[in-house]
Amino acid sequence: MKADAGTGNVSLRVATFVADARLDDLPANVRHEAKRSLLNFFGCALAGSHDADIAHLFKVTTALSGPAAATVIGRAQRVDLLTAAFLNAASANVFDFDDTHIPTIIHPTAPVAPALLALAETRRVSGAELLLAFVLGVDVTCRLGNALHPAHYRRGWHITSTCGVFGAAVAAAKLIGIDAGRIVWALGGAAAQASGLVETLGSTAKSIGVGNSARNGLFAALAADAGATGPLLPIEGQRGFAAVTGEQPNLAELITGLGERWEILNNTYKPYPCGVVLNSVIDGCLALREGHALAADRIARVVVSGHPLLGERTDRAGIKSGREAQVSAQHAAAVALLRGAADLAQFSDAAVRDPAVSALRGRVTVERDAAIPVEAADVRIELMDGQEFQIRIPHGRGSLQRPLSDREIEDKVRALARHGGFKADVSPLIDAIWSIERADDVAAIVRLTAAAE
Amino acid sequence: MKADAGTGNVSLRVATFVADARLDDLPANVRHEAKRSLLNFFGCALAGSHDADIAHLFKVTTALSGPAAATVIGRAQRVDLLTAAFLNAASANVFDFDDTHIPTIIHPTAPVAPALLALAETRRVSGAELLLAFVLGVDVTCRLGNALHPAHYRRGWHITSTCGVFGAAVAAAKLIGIDAGRIVWALGGAAAQASGLVETLGSTAKSIGVGNSARNGLFAALAADAGATGPLLPIEGQRGFAAVTGEQPNLAELITGLGERWEILNNTYKPYPCGVVLNSVIDGCLALREGHALAADRIARVVVSGHPLLGERTDRAGIKSGREAQVSAQHAAAVALLRGAADLAQFSDAAVRDPAVSALRGRVTVERDAAIPVEAADVRIELMDGQEFQIRIPHGRGSLQRPLSDREIEDKVRALARHGGFKADVSPLIDAIWSIERADDVAAIVRLTAAAE
Repeated sequence: MKADAGTGNVSLRVATFVADARLDDLPANVRHEAKRSLLNFFGCALAGSHDADIAHLFKVTTALSGPAAATVIGRAQRVDLLTAAFLNAASANVFDFDDTHIPTIIHPTAPVAPALLALAETRRVSGAELLLAFVLGVDVTCRLGNALHPAHYRRGWHITSTCGVFGAAVAAAKLIGIDAGRIVWALGGAAAQASGLVETLGSTAKSIGVGNSARNGLFAALAADAGATGPLLPIEGQRGFAAVTGEQPNLAELITGLGERWEILNNTYKPYPCGVVLNSVIDGCLALREGHALAADRIARVVVSGHPLLGERTDRAGIKSGREAQVSAQHAAAVALLRGAADLAQFSDAAVRDPAVSALRGRVTVERDAAIPVEAADVRIELMDGQEFQIRIPHGRGSLQRPLSDREIEDKVRALARHGGFKADVSPLIDAIWSIERADDVAAIVRLTAAAE
Repeated sequence: MKADAGTGNVSLRVATFVADARLDDLPANVRHEAKRSLLNFFGCALAGSHDADIAHLFKVTTALSGPAAATVIGRAQRVDLLTAAFLNAASANVFDFDDTHIPTIIHPTAPVAPALLALAETRRVSGAELLLAFVLGVDVTCRLGNALHPAHYRRGWHITSTCGVFGAAVAAAKLIGIDAGRIVWALGGAAAQASGLVETLGSTAKSIGVGNSARNGLFAALAADAGATGPLLPIEGQRGFAAVTGEQPNLAELITGLGERWEILNNTYKPYPCGVVLNSVIDGCLALREGHALAADRIARVVVSGHPLLGERTDRAGIKSGREAQVSAQHAAAVALLRGAADLAQFSDAAVRDPAVSALRGRVTVERDAAIPVEAADVRIELMDGQEFQIRIPHGRGSLQRPLSDREIEDKVRALARHGGFKADVSPLIDAIWSIERADDVAAIVRLTAAAE
C-alpha cells in the first residue's frame, strides 16, 4: 500500500499524538469509562489467575522470571515486569469475560493495562499518568482494529492479540516518556511481534497469544527506549502490518478524529462469561424463567432464534468442556433456565457434565433468521402441557444500549474475586480505581491485587 | 483449507515423525551438514554478539533476566535460557551472514540451534541428542517454508522468523522428550507466536523477530511440557498458520519423504556478509582484480549484469550504512575491486563512508538480463585507457554447486570470532563440533563460546 496524502505516515502521526497527549485532553466520560474498564479488568484477572491454563503458564514463566519487581494479580509470588504483563493479560482474558470493544470484538484492556501496571511497579507512576496512557493504548488498539476489521479476524487473526501489542507498546512508551520518533520504533517492535491465531481459541495457546500482546508490547517500548530501531512505516509500509495482515485496510481509521473521538467509549462489559452474542439469549431465558416460574422438567423444547451470526458462532450442542460451553447457545439457555444464573460456575466443566443441564441442552435448538438484528434474540419455550412463552430481547445487558451500571461492575468484580479464591476485601481496590486520578503511586493500587503469602 | 487424505493431520504426522526419530536414521552426509551449519552459526553469533543492535537488546533483556543458567555467545554474562535463546538467535542473524536454505532463503540455524543450546545448559544433553534435534528442527522449519514459498515472503512475512519458531518448538520438544500429542501442542504454541515482517529488515526490529523465533519456540515446548494445550490442527486448520499466512499452501511439502529427504542438505554458507545474490558479483570482481592486477583509479566503469532479481534486490547506489551496503551491488563490486576483500569490515558504516569506495560505487551500474540465470552474474570492467575485461560467474562461492569447504567454514569462524573481539582460541570449539556425536554433555561445548569475565 502506498502512503498517500490522507494516510501517509500514520505511524508517525499516531506516535506524535501519543507523545503530545495530556490528561486534560480527556473528557470526563472518557476518564470514567477507562475506570470502568480497569475495574472490570481487575475482576477478570482475579478470577482467571487460578485457572488451569494460567496455572500451566504460571509454572513455566515463574521458574524463569527475572527480578521480582511486579505483582501477579491474584498471586503472592512477584515476578519481573515482562512476566507480570504476560500473566496478568492472560489471566484477564482466559474466560473471555473481559471487556469488548463493540465495533471489532477486541478485548482491549487485557493487552494494554498489564504493561502499564508492571511499569508502575518499577518507576513511580501517578494515577493520572496511568489513566492517560491506558486510554491512549486502548485507542490505538481499537483504531488499528477498526482499520483491519472485518477481513483480519475473518482470515484467522486473533485481533485482540495482533492489535493489542501495538496498544501496549504505545501505552508503555507514553509512560516511559519517549519521543514520537522512538514511539515509531516501538510500533516497529510491536509489528515484528504481532501474532495470534483464531485457530488457538479453546486452548492454552490462545492465552499465550494474549499474554504476549502485553509482554511484547512492553518489551517493544523498553527496547525502543534503549535505542532499538524499527522501520519508518511499521503499520502502513508496503510490507508493514496493515498490508500483510489486512485486506484493503482503511488506514484513515487510525487518524481520523484523533483526540476527538475516543474508542474506549465503544467499550462494553459482559454480564455473563460467554460469547457476547449470547447475552440476549441468556437475558431472554432468565426473564421467561422469572416471569413464568418455569421448572425445567416441564420444558419440552426451547427455540433460540437470532441473526445468522448467532448460529454460526454458538450453535454447539455436543460440548464437553466449560471452554466450549462459553460459545454454546444450547448450554447458555440450559443453565439460565435450569439454574437461573449464568456466572462462571455455570460455564465450568462440572456444569457441562451435570445430567440435568445436559438433558435440557438436548432440547434447545438454534434457528437462524436474518431479519433479527445481531444484537437481539428471540427465545420461545414450549412446555410439556402445550403452553408456549416467547420473548424478544432487542439488546442484551452489557451492550452499548444497556450498559452495566457502575454498581453492577462493582458486583461483578466482587463475584469474580470470590470465584478466584481471593481472600482480601476488594473494596479498597474498587475505591482506588474510582479515584485513580488522585493517586500518587499506582504501585500501591496494584499491590492490593496480590494474594497474601 | 480442508484436511484431505493427502495432507490431513500434517501437524500430528510431523509431530509423530519428530517423536519417533533416532540418530541412526540420519545419513552421514546429513550429520556432516548439520555440523557445518552449527559451526557457521557459532562464527556468526560470535561476530554479531557485540553489534550495536544486539547491544541494545542485550541491555534490555539482561536487566530482566531470570536465573543465570545459560551462555550468551561472545559474552561473559549468563542469563536464563529463554533470554539466551533470544540473544543468540539475534546475534547469529544480525549480519545475515548465517546459513541460507536455498529453496526458501530461510536462515534455519538461527531460530533452531539457540533453543537447543540453552536447554543443554539446564539438563544434560548429549551431542548425539543435540544433533538429531537440530536436524529435525531445521527440517520442519524448511519444509514449512517450502509449503508457503514464495507467496509467504512476497506478502511480507520474514520467513526465517515465522517458520523458524515451529522448528525451534519441535527441536526443543524433541530434547525435552515429550510425546507426539504434546509436540502438536508445542506447534500450537508456536502458531500463536509466529511473527516477523519483511518491513523490519534493516532495523533492530528484525532482530527482535529472529530472537523471538528461538525464544518463543523454546517457550512453546516448555509450556507444552507443563501441560499448556494447543489446537489440534495448528498448521493445517481452517484458521491455522498455513491458511492465515499463506496463499494456497502446499501442505504436502511438510510430509512428503519425511525421513528420506532432508532439507538440511539444501543449506548453504555465505562467503561474504551480504545478500546471497551478490556472491557471484563479488567472485567476478575478485577474479578480474586478481587476474589483471587492476588498480581502482584506472577503472572508468563497472557493469554488473544479472537476472532481474539481482537488480530488484541490490541495485542500490545511494547508501548510507553498512546495513544497506549488504544489499548494494554497487558497494559489493566497489569494495571487492578496491580492497580485494568482501568481509564484515567491508560492509561497515566506515567502509560505506570511505571516499575511495564511494567514488568507485558511483561508477558501477547494474543491468538486468533475464537470459542470465539467477545464480550467475557477469562483470564487465572498462578502464580509462579503453581496455575492457569481462567475466561470467555461473555459480558463486557458497552455492549448492560450489559449497564452502569444511576448511573454508573453519576459516570463516576464525575470522568472525576475531571480528567480534572474541579473545579465546576457537580451535577447541571447532574440534568439538566436528566430533559432537561423541560428546557426553553439550553444555561444555556451549561454554567454549562465552567470553572471559
